[in-house]
Amino acid sequence: MQKKNNAVNKDNNQKSQKNKSNQKWQKNRSNQFKQTKKNTASKSRNGSAKKYRKVNELPIKISFLGGLNEVGKNMTLYEYKEDMFLVDCGLAFPDPEMLGVDLVIPDFSYVERNADKIKGIVITHGHEDHIGGLAYLLKTVNIPVYGTKLTIGLIQGKLKEHGILSSAKLHEIAPGDVVELGEFTVEAIHVNHSIPDAIALAIKCECGTVVQTGDFKIDSTPIDGGMIDLSRFAQLGEEGVLALLSDSTNAERPGYTESERKVGESFDVLFRRAGKSRIIVATFASNIHRVQQIINVASALGRKVAIIGRSLENVVNISAQLGYLNIPDNVLINADLINKYPADSLVIITTGSQGEPMSALSRMAFSDHRKVEICPNDYVIISATPIPGNEKMVGKVVNELLKLGAHVIYEKMYDVHVSGHACQEELKLIMGLVKPRYFIPVHGEQKHLRKHALLAEGMGIETENIFIADNGYVAEITSKSIKSGAPVPAGKVFVDGSGVGDVGSVVLRDRKHLGQDGIIVVTASIDYETGQLIAGPEVVSRGFVYVKEAEELIEQARKVAEKCLENCYYNNISDIGAIKGKLRDAVSHFVYDKTKRSPMILPILMEV
Amino acid sequence: MQKKNNAVNKDNNQKSQKNKSNQKWQKNRSNQFKQTKKNTASKSRNGSAKKYRKVNELPIKISFLGGLNEVGKNMTLYEYKEDMFLVDCGLAFPDPEMLGVDLVIPDFSYVERNADKIKGIVITHGHEDHIGGLAYLLKTVNIPVYGTKLTIGLIQGKLKEHGILSSAKLHEIAPGDVVELGEFTVEAIHVNHSIPDAIALAIKCECGTVVQTGDFKIDSTPIDGGMIDLSRFAQLGEEGVLALLSDSTNAERPGYTESERKVGESFDVLFRRAGKSRIIVATFASNIHRVQQIINVASALGRKVAIIGRSLENVVNISAQLGYLNIPDNVLINADLINKYPADSLVIITTGSQGEPMSALSRMAFSDHRKVEICPNDYVIISATPIPGNEKMVGKVVNELLKLGAHVIYEKMYDVHVSGHACQEELKLIMGLVKPRYFIPVHGEQKHLRKHALLAEGMGIETENIFIADNGYVAEITSKSIKSGAPVPAGKVFVDGSGVGDVGSVVLRDRKHLGQDGIIVVTASIDYETGQLIAGPEVVSRGFVYVKEAEELIEQARKVAEKCLENCYYNNISDIGAIKGKLRDAVSHFVYDKTKRSPMILPILMEV
Repeated sequence: MQKKNNAVNKDNNQKSQKNKSNQKWQKNRSNQFKQTKKNTASKSRNGSAKKYRKVNELPIKISFLGGLNEVGKNMTLYEYKEDMFLVDCGLAFPDPEMLGVDLVIPDFSYVERNADKIKGIVITHGHEDHIGGLAYLLKTVNIPVYGTKLTIGLIQGKLKEHGILSSAKLHEIAPGDVVELGEFTVEAIHVNHSIPDAIALAIKCECGTVVQTGDFKIDSTPIDGGMIDLSRFAQLGEEGVLALLSDSTNAERPGYTESERKVGESFDVLFRRAGKSRIIVATFASNIHRVQQIINVASALGRKVAIIGRSLENVVNISAQLGYLNIPDNVLINADLINKYPADSLVIITTGSQGEPMSALSRMAFSDHRKVEICPNDYVIISATPIPGNEKMVGKVVNELLKLGAHVIYEKMYDVHVSGHACQEELKLIMGLVKPRYFIPVHGEQKHLRKHALLAEGMGIETENIFIADNGYVAEITSKSIKSGAPVPAGKVFVDGSGVGDVGSVVLRDRKHLGQDGIIVVTASIDYETGQLIAGPEVVSRGFVYVKEAEELIEQARKVAEKCLENCYYNNISDIGAIKGKLRDAVSHFVYDKTKRSPMILPILMEV
Repeated sequence: MQKKNNAVNKDNNQKSQKNKSNQKWQKNRSNQFKQTKKNTASKSRNGSAKKYRKVNELPIKISFLGGLNEVGKNMTLYEYKEDMFLVDCGLAFPDPEMLGVDLVIPDFSYVERNADKIKGIVITHGHEDHIGGLAYLLKTVNIPVYGTKLTIGLIQGKLKEHGILSSAKLHEIAPGDVVELGEFTVEAIHVNHSIPDAIALAIKCECGTVVQTGDFKIDSTPIDGGMIDLSRFAQLGEEGVLALLSDSTNAERPGYTESERKVGESFDVLFRRAGKSRIIVATFASNIHRVQQIINVASALGRKVAIIGRSLENVVNISAQLGYLNIPDNVLINADLINKYPADSLVIITTGSQGEPMSALSRMAFSDHRKVEICPNDYVIISATPIPGNEKMVGKVVNELLKLGAHVIYEKMYDVHVSGHACQEELKLIMGLVKPRYFIPVHGEQKHLRKHALLAEGMGIETENIFIADNGYVAEITSKSIKSGAPVPAGKVFVDGSGVGDVGSVVLRDRKHLGQDGIIVVTASIDYETGQLIAGPEVVSRGFVYVKEAEELIEQARKVAEKCLENCYYNNISDIGAIKGKLRDAVSHFVYDKTKRSPMILPILMEV
């Protein structure tokens, strides 16, 4: 299943080193956790122990450029001596208060400043929160990109959209491969996740080994690609791991995450229960294994499958081309032809499982989809659980589908979704195998990071060896200590339309004010020399009151403005700024008094 | 516990009537459900059976003015012959897309039109979604209001704020009391809920009996006031009930809702576990029994209690005055004095359990509270589960509290919250006792109503006897049928500041546009006669780009506007509307081309 790229891998063992204190620590830990593969691992452990002592203890620096205290825009920078490389470059979706923002990417200023040191970027998997910022990054620094086949395939699609595919330096790697990036070697390790071809990374330099899990779960019966390579995690643990950076997404959830295969079993039950109804399944576009299972069950029951939703069509095409999706002949039909098939011989796979307002399922629910009209008795399965914040949107879609008479399966009890992230028992298992000296929980909000840290403490990792970071933090790690280095720039850069970073806090504050209360524009022309009113004032409002029913209020506001301008003139106030200030105050007070509202007041004075 | 108001109640039995088909139906139902209190009930059943036959079968009409396909603004209108009365008048909190709207109330136009027929309004309990619209209603039609002691107490507070308390006609009733409202009698029945003094209603007229549960749960070990009066529901069921309107909020949840007492047990465990830490508990202001339990446990452990949060202080004061809250001497301390007490002798009860941005807990979490500064080791208990849509806000508050070093209890597993609404087994129990001929699920979104209807079907109520309504629907019920009458006006009226109903779809559309993309105002003065440009154009933007870094873009837009105005002049386009249209198009295209954004373009031309 995995090929070892020995050409790159050959001097790997020599770089895996540790010193006495590491051995001592590992001895302690080995009492606690059952060691696997002791014999195979002990060789490299003994072989590398001596070398460690010679090493000049420069720290490996890990800078967190995104993904901490948030869900999304994961980006980590590794630095040792004069060399750097990056792991992942994701985007985040805007919070509701980031009005009009399309997406959020990491602040690249620290990367730009160190562009000549950066040897490349390794991508763990093809989800938006790990690849979505890459096109913006490569426009800034065109560094080599390393990722597995499907990941590179998905990246190619993105770079093409941005018109920078031809100049990009994309390198395909496979689990087991080792990439040399200056002082570092980076080994890809196969993991399970809700997208195929996800990898963890074993990052080695003279200072020691750091394991970064990426997003992962432990699926012993995955749909394709085999179970996560636990053996390799165990080997690394035996060889000695300085630090583990592990996925905290599900750190609040006890137990194990169910296998993806469970969902297939549910589909089989539900598809049969659907009887003569048309079946519509909404899921995440990137969950290829989910799509595979829907196709398998549909095909077994003699139903045709139509794919609807741009992102889904896109991912299905790439996955099928690259061999990640196995579609039997004559199963897939063109979405334009769905009405030619009877309801009981059709399964539609679509997007919108999070209730996104512009998605296919949402448009179907609100009777606004070009190709699919929901009929009574349609059997709709929402194969996802709402991401926090999306509950209400999903609820709305469910309600609308029910109103149209559809049967909707959306509750947890039907097992139509499993998470792609490890729960507490899996997280502990990985810690137990990797046996890191230092532990850094990543990917998650504060509550996830804290819970993950508590799990680590529970497994005997000492509190001072656990590093809860934030974006902009730098962990400086040697064999003796982990400490916080000087922080680096890391923040949110907003993408709005074609603008990157030109929407900031001032613009957002204005948007919030405009959105909540609307605007009143007061314009007037005044004499350039005397300050006397020549034309206007005119008062125009938007988003404040329904103008046709509030003519009197607007006229009163106009009179207030007029009187204010006259007062300025008679009191010899000629400074334009001062007049604007008085105008703003006068109209604002009048309006608040009348309506208890505070629209934005925008005075514009033209000097004639 | 309950007193019967016999003065009003005396001719009650004579009005409880049914006809032969009702008896037949009840016989069928009685095979299915065990009948309780057969003897006590049979008397009135036999007594009233004859009269039913004589009745001219005019329908009882139930108009749904709010609370269906939504959570909030519950309001129901009953009509028989020439008489009407209302049940509840709640508010709803605005959806995120209702920008700037403070609250949403029902459309009262149908009530206004029938003002002279309406004999009064009966309120089931004191929650905002049942009383929050009342002040606005009474300003429109000043009808008598009936409610239990605490409910009336809370209403008084609201009416006082609106300055209409003195003119209001408030009538206190108790469970067992029967109010005569024209053709109707309305009996109050004690139920359990997350606020004391909640009642269900048995509504009788010649046509028969309708039971409306209000919000309820079955709590066999409530903190105060006794268990829900199941006997009365059983009696009514034996006498014959035409229709049941029942609370659907938890219709999706299997099993039983836990007793409120369970939360007290959890508090006891957690307060002890908090050790030397200061304890802060956030809960719903109106959950008096929750507050009582916190006070009880705090007092037993020798801790003082401070109340922080305006709405909570308000409710606690009213409840204590009216005897719904029993506060031992020397337990309550002034919130200004909390810093004079050591951490381990203090419990703070506060608002903000839903993560509301302006609430006390949220301000504490963001280090923005005037009186409480969160310290490391503070022990914070969030005694609530997030209402759908609030998950992310609650998560944010939890994250911030954790960052400040506090210990936060927010997970379900700690049993620090129970619902106030009946789950599936309780809903079925009520149906089984009341044995209605017709069933109308109320209070809930479509998914809740549908699930509740399925429960009813499962209990043998025939599909055609189940009426899933929507706001504006009218159920016309006789002993023979339930059918949909001509719809009545029912919708959302937005309250924004002091304005009621002056914000509508146009204003909201503008607010959305302004909030997402900002605004560009283009002003110019042109000659009144020739149309020639005299001053300007000036281009001012807000919420579009950060102006100081986009001077060039704005200047280019100004030139585009200038050229457009010149073109109009040379092409003899003098109509102001036409010039504005051209200006809007030109600037809009330019801006989209440069930024891929579509701010609102507002041209203002002044004729000099």
